[in-house]
Amino acid sequence: MAQLKGACIFGQSGGPTAVINASAAGVIQEALKQDCITEVYGAAHGIKGILNEVFYDMGKEDPYELDLLKTTPSSALGSVRYKLKNTDEDESDYKKLLEVFRKYNIRYFFYNGGNDSMDTCNKVSKYLQKVGYECRVIGIPKTIDNDLWGTDHCPGYGSAAKYIATSVMEVYHDARVYDTGMITVLEIMGRNAGWLTAAAHLASYKGAGPDLIYLPEKPFDLDSFLDQAVSIFKKNGNCIAAVSEGIKDKDGVYISEYGSDLAKSKDAFGHAQLGGLAATLANIVKQKTGAKVRGIEFSLLQRCAAHLASLTDVNEAYMAGQEAVRCAVEGKTDFMVAFERAAGDSYQCNIKLVNLTDVANAEKKVPLEWIKDDDTGLTDDFVKYALPLIQGESKPPVEDGLPRFARLRKVLARK
Amino acid sequence: MAQLKGACIFGQSGGPTAVINASAAGVIQEALKQDCITEVYGAAHGIKGILNEVFYDMGKEDPYELDLLKTTPSSALGSVRYKLKNTDEDESDYKKLLEVFRKYNIRYFFYNGGNDSMDTCNKVSKYLQKVGYECRVIGIPKTIDNDLWGTDHCPGYGSAAKYIATSVMEVYHDARVYDTGMITVLEIMGRNAGWLTAAAHLASYKGAGPDLIYLPEKPFDLDSFLDQAVSIFKKNGNCIAAVSEGIKDKDGVYISEYGSDLAKSKDAFGHAQLGGLAATLANIVKQKTGAKVRGIEFSLLQRCAAHLASLTDVNEAYMAGQEAVRCAVEGKTDFMVAFERAAGDSYQCNIKLVNLTDVANAEKKVPLEWIKDDDTGLTDDFVKYALPLIQGESKPPVEDGLPRFARLRKVLARK
Repeated sequence: MAQLKGACIFGQSGGPTAVINASAAGVIQEALKQDCITEVYGAAHGIKGILNEVFYDMGKEDPYELDLLKTTPSSALGSVRYKLKNTDEDESDYKKLLEVFRKYNIRYFFYNGGNDSMDTCNKVSKYLQKVGYECRVIGIPKTIDNDLWGTDHCPGYGSAAKYIATSVMEVYHDARVYDTGMITVLEIMGRNAGWLTAAAHLASYKGAGPDLIYLPEKPFDLDSFLDQAVSIFKKNGNCIAAVSEGIKDKDGVYISEYGSDLAKSKDAFGHAQLGGLAATLANIVKQKTGAKVRGIEFSLLQRCAAHLASLTDVNEAYMAGQEAVRCAVEGKTDFMVAFERAAGDSYQCNIKLVNLTDVANAEKKVPLEWIKDDDTGLTDDFVKYALPLIQGESKPPVEDGLPRFARLRKVLARK
Repeated sequence: MAQLKGACIFGQSGGPTAVINASAAGVIQEALKQDCITEVYGAAHGIKGILNEVFYDMGKEDPYELDLLKTTPSSALGSVRYKLKNTDEDESDYKKLLEVFRKYNIRYFFYNGGNDSMDTCNKVSKYLQKVGYECRVIGIPKTIDNDLWGTDHCPGYGSAAKYIATSVMEVYHDARVYDTGMITVLEIMGRNAGWLTAAAHLASYKGAGPDLIYLPEKPFDLDSFLDQAVSIFKKNGNCIAAVSEGIKDKDGVYISEYGSDLAKSKDAFGHAQLGGLAATLANIVKQKTGAKVRGIEFSLLQRCAAHLASLTDVNEAYMAGQEAVRCAVEGKTDFMVAFERAAGDSYQCNIKLVNLTDVANAEKKVPLEWIKDDDTGLTDDFVKYALPLIQGESKPPVEDGLPRFARLRKVLARK
């Protein structure tokens, strides 16, 4: 394959994670080393930055700050949720993108995100192929939800899982100190796939986890939940349940939507109380049992906790970015970088490439056979799968007792 | 002072913290070394364990596990919220306690907790003096709220402050990645004193903190909050507000009660149970502005995050326990161990003793002159006060990528 000379552009897309910037560091540092890559651009807010011609010259950044990206949470370049139309519907975005790529001689496009972002990446790749504009397009996986097809796991998941399992262990200790017990409901992210909520089971594996775990892969039955929670509470004096934000009943209705009907709490202004699923379920449990309850929502904390990241995850996220650049330079295009677990007992993560067409918009859920029938947790297969992903401690350098995150200069590319 | 020979008993009381067990380690390890202390008992659930004669023989614990208490969050012996009646109302608890103390020849009583617990400790001390039972009574401060009178600061505060400031910095990065902004409301513990919420300002000090901070020390005005939040949102495209759970309007009504049925339940001390404030405020902001909002409640996570404890706090909590024992052995009684900051620019924390009578039920609030008039944060005096307390990294040993907390045997004392 002939060497392709030109600029590269990199974009971050979808929800932030603790390690998406580690992938950014991998892409940028590797791209800056490559002779055939003339300029390294970072798109502001992903695809929108390309369309609006707002991107940064990453060669102008301080190398020390670029290195700090490895331990800086969230999307340093800005992220976006923007769905490209299909080309047969409306080609205008694609034409604009092509114009920008031509203007800056962009020949390498790296896009880092989850399902929707891989769809964007795939569409851009196919359009550029169709119009015959030579450009190497590689997607880089990212999602705490861990639901991308074609990869053993996704960068971002290990760190979120480590945060969740650690925090659940801490809450477990906190929630049982009084002689009068409590029912605690923990709400964890994951709209359609239960990987994150399953991570709470790692705390159970260490003897300090939830009694009950509910993933969106299985219909949620409120009566059965109440029966089980109350029975455990009566027996042990305490009960902790971990629920995915995306649990639905057998009719496909989100349990979080029960809130307005069942909780019926209105404030002094007549506003219905905006509460999450944890608050809703805790309220229902309280009304039914009179038990002391607490609903805890891990909220954004679970996806941006760089202070408790998995070193394995950080290193793999970096590697994914780095390998994306290497593969593109070697002539590969129209792929997503993916992880493959080596056979054998000791954990080893290898890189492979999967077709963007296959990965776009496909979803990988927790296998039903890994979920215990009685909702008390996951099987050992899950522990074997997940435990290697949370190994190793990564945290940002500390300054004044607080994390020192990267501070980018964000010099706009010359038009 | 003649040496007093006998058993000691130690109890944990009130809300758990990341470092209350470090104080336990200090008391137990020091007491086990003292010749005049014949047995070291740990009360199950504080004063209730004494009254019910349920306590553990701490000499039977594995020294390695006792050492792990330094990095184990929550109250390992169990905590309690139980208010002793005044002796002129009802002496029965006191008589029972005296009977137990006589039976086990308990001559040292160490009680670790916040305002209510120091009240308990004081009442026990005064009763034992009144009836002429020789027993050395020393209180050990503990509260993430940092509101105990007579001490520069309280064990537990530094770690909670470090967790809050770090998490706020991470949320700051997460909450501004999209090109369409968001108003984020962070709810932080602190019923009457705003020390914990003030800790969010340490994130501002590092350039990644809230735009607005509201402490319970000042009446909260909803209209003024809305005006300020919307004005900042319009100007910057984002706004983060940190609010104490205990903020009240000018009529003394908790803002959380504007929206929560749960808030109507009261705990054993008659305190209203607070919660749901972030959701309530976020909802009001959404209805008034149409902006994207998110309410985040740090909940229990802020008081049990041993994985992100302040080493300064851990060491001082241990020292407070250790010094309580040493002072008692030297003949001191009816005091609380307290911290005094040495004069000069470099931080040094010394031990002093304050009268239990003075400390019981007194409250120390954030000085009004440290709170900026425009609600944008705290003054440099606060930063100078708080920053030394969050220095140094303490975390539990790691096993399988997760914290390894202490596992006590809890051998019941022989009756």
